[in-house]
Amino acid sequence: MRTDYCGNIDSSYIGQEVTLCGWVNKRRDLGGVIFIDLRDREGMVQVVFDPDLPDVLEVANTLRGEFCVRLTGKVRPRPQGQVNAQMKTGEIEILGTGLEVINKSAVLPLDWNQENSEEQRLRYRYLDLRRPVMSQRLQFRAKVTGAVRRFLEEQGFLDIETPILTKATPEGARDYLVPSRTHKGEFFALPQSPQLFKQLLMMSGMDRYYQIVKCFRDEDLRADRQPEFTQIDIETTFLDAEGVMSITEAMIRDLFKTMLDVDLGEFPRMTYAEAMQRYGSDKPDLRNPLELVDVADLMQSVEFKVFSGPANDAKGRVTVIRVPGGASLSRKQIDDYTRFVGIYGAKGLAWVKVNEKAKGQDGLQSPVLKFLSAEITDAIIERTGAQDGDILLFGADSATVVTEAMGALRLKLGNDFDLLEGEWRPLWVVDFPMFEEVDGALHALHHPFTSPRGLTAEELKANPVGALSDAYDMVLNGVELGGGSVRIHDQQMQSAVFSILGIEEEEARNKFGFLLEALQFGAPPHAGLAFGLDRLVMLMTGATSIRDVMAFPKTTTAACPLTDAPSPANPQQLDDLAITVVKKTAE
Amino acid sequence: MRTDYCGNIDSSYIGQEVTLCGWVNKRRDLGGVIFIDLRDREGMVQVVFDPDLPDVLEVANTLRGEFCVRLTGKVRPRPQGQVNAQMKTGEIEILGTGLEVINKSAVLPLDWNQENSEEQRLRYRYLDLRRPVMSQRLQFRAKVTGAVRRFLEEQGFLDIETPILTKATPEGARDYLVPSRTHKGEFFALPQSPQLFKQLLMMSGMDRYYQIVKCFRDEDLRADRQPEFTQIDIETTFLDAEGVMSITEAMIRDLFKTMLDVDLGEFPRMTYAEAMQRYGSDKPDLRNPLELVDVADLMQSVEFKVFSGPANDAKGRVTVIRVPGGASLSRKQIDDYTRFVGIYGAKGLAWVKVNEKAKGQDGLQSPVLKFLSAEITDAIIERTGAQDGDILLFGADSATVVTEAMGALRLKLGNDFDLLEGEWRPLWVVDFPMFEEVDGALHALHHPFTSPRGLTAEELKANPVGALSDAYDMVLNGVELGGGSVRIHDQQMQSAVFSILGIEEEEARNKFGFLLEALQFGAPPHAGLAFGLDRLVMLMTGATSIRDVMAFPKTTTAACPLTDAPSPANPQQLDDLAITVVKKTAE
Repeated sequence: MRTDYCGNIDSSYIGQEVTLCGWVNKRRDLGGVIFIDLRDREGMVQVVFDPDLPDVLEVANTLRGEFCVRLTGKVRPRPQGQVNAQMKTGEIEILGTGLEVINKSAVLPLDWNQENSEEQRLRYRYLDLRRPVMSQRLQFRAKVTGAVRRFLEEQGFLDIETPILTKATPEGARDYLVPSRTHKGEFFALPQSPQLFKQLLMMSGMDRYYQIVKCFRDEDLRADRQPEFTQIDIETTFLDAEGVMSITEAMIRDLFKTMLDVDLGEFPRMTYAEAMQRYGSDKPDLRNPLELVDVADLMQSVEFKVFSGPANDAKGRVTVIRVPGGASLSRKQIDDYTRFVGIYGAKGLAWVKVNEKAKGQDGLQSPVLKFLSAEITDAIIERTGAQDGDILLFGADSATVVTEAMGALRLKLGNDFDLLEGEWRPLWVVDFPMFEEVDGALHALHHPFTSPRGLTAEELKANPVGALSDAYDMVLNGVELGGGSVRIHDQQMQSAVFSILGIEEEEARNKFGFLLEALQFGAPPHAGLAFGLDRLVMLMTGATSIRDVMAFPKTTTAACPLTDAPSPANPQQLDDLAITVVKKTAE
Repeated sequence: MRTDYCGNIDSSYIGQEVTLCGWVNKRRDLGGVIFIDLRDREGMVQVVFDPDLPDVLEVANTLRGEFCVRLTGKVRPRPQGQVNAQMKTGEIEILGTGLEVINKSAVLPLDWNQENSEEQRLRYRYLDLRRPVMSQRLQFRAKVTGAVRRFLEEQGFLDIETPILTKATPEGARDYLVPSRTHKGEFFALPQSPQLFKQLLMMSGMDRYYQIVKCFRDEDLRADRQPEFTQIDIETTFLDAEGVMSITEAMIRDLFKTMLDVDLGEFPRMTYAEAMQRYGSDKPDLRNPLELVDVADLMQSVEFKVFSGPANDAKGRVTVIRVPGGASLSRKQIDDYTRFVGIYGAKGLAWVKVNEKAKGQDGLQSPVLKFLSAEITDAIIERTGAQDGDILLFGADSATVVTEAMGALRLKLGNDFDLLEGEWRPLWVVDFPMFEEVDGALHALHHPFTSPRGLTAEELKANPVGALSDAYDMVLNGVELGGGSVRIHDQQMQSAVFSILGIEEEEARNKFGFLLEALQFGAPPHAGLAFGLDRLVMLMTGATSIRDVMAFPKTTTAACPLTDAPSPANPQQLDDLAITVVKKTAE
């Protein structure tokens, strides 16, 4: 039906006749001459209909936006002054000699020249995706998955599919359930990840596995999450953490080079402890130069209880962020930041402005100055490197609250003061604790199949709180791109971890009996990693939501305005499945 | 941890030291010298432990089947007479100089030297997959998907993901449902195919789409089906049936050449009518030389009502299969075939043996001979080309029964008489009817989005029964590899088809309103096809069940003996989903 794509026609085609199919992007009538921009996936080209060809002009006169047409014409240079150097097709135009309307279009319910509501965009997704920016994102995504696949296949990874209808996981509260017809009263769960299956594949000797795979989580979607999301899932045998990090770092470096011509260089590494201390985050954005500087040692004897209390508490923390140029902040702005840290549980935000430092303490302004000796303020100024015009913002509370609040404040200040440096700052975070304590109980920081680092099962049981895991997260610009670990391949160790996590023997047998059993049959050492594809593509395309890099995302209430899913089920079907509905959400 | 794969060590390594990781496939003790076959994904290699290295020998003595080990050793030629030319590693052996047991193995619950029950194989799938034949099938499958992706991406197809949580389809009875937590009382459905989404992607201008994607169908699994299966799903814009067939035929040809070094040649084409007439099947196995030869015209005046009845009925059919060498069939064997066609509703199976044809009707043996004049038997023998020693088997009944029964009989005879010729016989079946009549109602032979061939909406409504569709199926060795069609891109035509199918306007609006709406906005012509990946890989690997080319299939009752899915749900979860279980399947 066509000889080429619209977006491919450049000056090398001059003099040729081409036939194109596409959509009318814009139509202008300039004194009887009709111009249209004809659009397809590859781009747009300008077409001119001339009164010298009245039959074609007559058809062109009926064209409206988004009509689907087939056009034949002759490529010629644009008149002088009309060349658009920004466009591939900007040097030429096509004189239309034949025109067929394939399908008319009603007036679009979306106006591409203004913001449309998310609801409208999703309801008419097929029209929203016609916008070049959206089309290009999906094309980019397809190229990313192609490049990832090529890289991994060259490295001997096998693409192996794991089940979507599977068993509920320990974090079952967020599982989507699927009633079984043949086993009435029982349910499949949609996988939150193929974790156990990929481990089983390693035990089956598949050696190197990957899959670009849908995962599912029924959770709060406000934080730009989606009920179904896509992972680049990787697992290897006979490789340690170093080996997995090396392959996956090379993969991401290769991807950025291929797709964006960006050289990410070698990724630096940072321990979890250092990341939490300096940046208040386990996924620090290194483009942001602000750091948390600990000053508890200086505050132990000050009269100000807000500082000395946490400074003398083993679980407390006193830290300060120096904001260059921050002395200009108004009282109201400081109040806003105080409210901001309050979201994270901080009870206040002490501050010291540095204005004429040369004058000693006289150059400082602060409501808390009276509590701090010149010796202490000098030491703080020296440690933070504060200069005239800066502000120092203090966090003092339990370490948990301070780290979270000041970590969040650091990000906000970095944006507000426009401090971000550099375009891409990758990072490996390593040496995570095995467990975190929440309300007296231990939880796995990664998942219960993560191997501890250099410990026997007995040593781990003796001191679980201090144990580090063999886990690693890849972080880019403050976003966790992926995370993984060396897995436990020893049955005793796996039982020890379940027992530390308070998973009773019977529960462990019920939920993970097959894994424990599998570990008996010569299970090999294995390790892996999973990347969030949606987030990766979002970062690489500069989109602001993962919804903008998915073809058919759901709304924040997990609905699809296009197909109107979910919807009530046919009573016969519920009967077949032997379930009934107890309560309905009001419309 | 290793320098290479076990299966890669050939005579080019002689003299080198290698370190390998893998599993003990077999251990033999020959007068104090221990031999093991060490296995990994890539193959096996023979290792020798010699009494000259007693420390290593001592460890080797503890080895049992499926122990996971790390071995260091020196590659040397095998002694004369021990060379195995069948194996890549058959010319060498490794003298073990270092050996570490990574993980011991309990005695396997599966015995690889004998048949294991399907249940046991699936329960210990990770062990079943260690068998080289199974491992190689999964590796083959991964290479197939890689080759398909490369082919399609070179042709400009974009890999775009469509939702798994979606809306129930018209064939909703077989949908898996997923209760929504945020919209209590409502359900998502898992897709039986991404049909509507891929059509919407064409309307969004994505031009060429593909996806290797899981689909779901909650149906009887006895016929080697699985609740989740994988499609190679393809859709294109501005291409007609010819265009889609040409690309997808090239893809399959390329795949067979790359993977099996088989040249499939150009695929012949056959109309649906011819396939049903000559082979009694819409997916004829052309390796089978038997054909159905119609003889109704010869039977209209015979006295035998079993023949003359259907021969004079417009909806009847009288046909004959000539089986070379079939005259040797015993009465009991013929009775067995009679029972076989009975499964398909045939009330009998008349036969004529041809023994001394030269003698005329005297050379024929048959209980029905008395009803047939010599003129008629001569005509039948001429038309079927029957020779001495053949048998003619007759089907006479309604065309539906005869076609189905004789089509099935043809396949069975082809196998029983070992008649299959040639290894690979591809075929396109085209010119399907738009609709089939079942109990007076019209059903879509493909699906309701299939375009009729060369008809306006008015013409279609005037004579739906005679209409042909623009659909095409790719068949290989009697298996439907894939099917597709040109889709309807005109709103009037789509409404006409819905109305012919008896889908009321309101129902159409409820179920497909979004599709009808989308057709208003300059929808382009589009067409596509979907291949069954599991079936394709099964054929290519010579496996006898799709379960043997899937990593973790379900049983015929749609359960997973490995993870024990499906399983009862946590009551709190059901509460959150606002559903209750009415009835349980007894254990």
